Amino acid sequence: MIPESHADLLSVKGFAHAATLGPDGAPQSNPVWYDWDGAHLKFSQTRTRQKLHNLERDPRIALSITDPENPYRYLEIRGRVVAIDDDPDNAFIDSLAQKYIDQEHYPWHQPGDERVVVKVLPEHATTMG
Amino acid sequence: MIPESHADLLSVKGFAHAATLGPDGAPQSNPVWYDWDGAHLKFSQTRTRQKLHNLERDPRIALSITDPENPYRYLEIRGRVVAIDDDPDNAFIDSLAQKYIDQEHYPWHQPGDERVVVKVLPEHATTMG
Repeated sequence: MIPESHADLLSVKGFAHAATLGPDGAPQSNPVWYDWDGAHLKFSQTRTRQKLHNLERDPRIALSITDPENPYRYLEIRGRVVAIDDDPDNAFIDSLAQKYIDQEHYPWHQPGDERVVVKVLPEHATTMG
Repeated sequence: MIPESHADLLSVKGFAHAATLGPDGAPQSNPVWYDWDGAHLKFSQTRTRQKLHNLERDPRIALSITDPENPYRYLEIRGRVVAIDDDPDNAFIDSLAQKYIDQEHYPWHQPGDERVVVKVLPEHATTMG
């Protein structure tokens, strides 16, 4: 599914620009931290965010990831959300904080924030560079 | 429309991740060079690209722009394509090549490529950082 030539982008400290569909079907996009478990691209979200409501309504998503070393090289993954799992002790968001900013705990956690792990199954990939 | 606090991102050499809708309404995303004319965000496309067909079918688009100096600061513009203009002598794509890679002419032009200028009217903005 993911071309060998761009599979390295699944583990670098890049940002994935995640495009989802709003209530009226219009696209929305914002950058997210991500991780790859060998089969799914995973990112963290709070329960109350619009993006999560979007994905509960329509699980289709596209994520474009630019190589942090070379902005003219990128990977786009299109697929769908197959699971939205609880992250009760923040294990997943903390693992992303470790990966991205070398901190044991995610520093921007807000009281009352409920974190979930969004799992995306890739169905199609496009690349450039 | 564009918050003062993030208006600088309209003129930096950042990439805009452009989310459009495919034939089945699913999101697609890829990074583009862009420019700002004071009212529209503009980017270049070849006539034959899927993205252009998407926008002719459904003009709704979201573009997320990360600050090249600070990946935790970004601007998302949601809006619609209000014009797709010819770029017959490549004046626009060449101006982007000048801005982004300091070259007078766009170096990756292919024989037969017909360039257009896609003009996006912002209708909503979100920011972070």
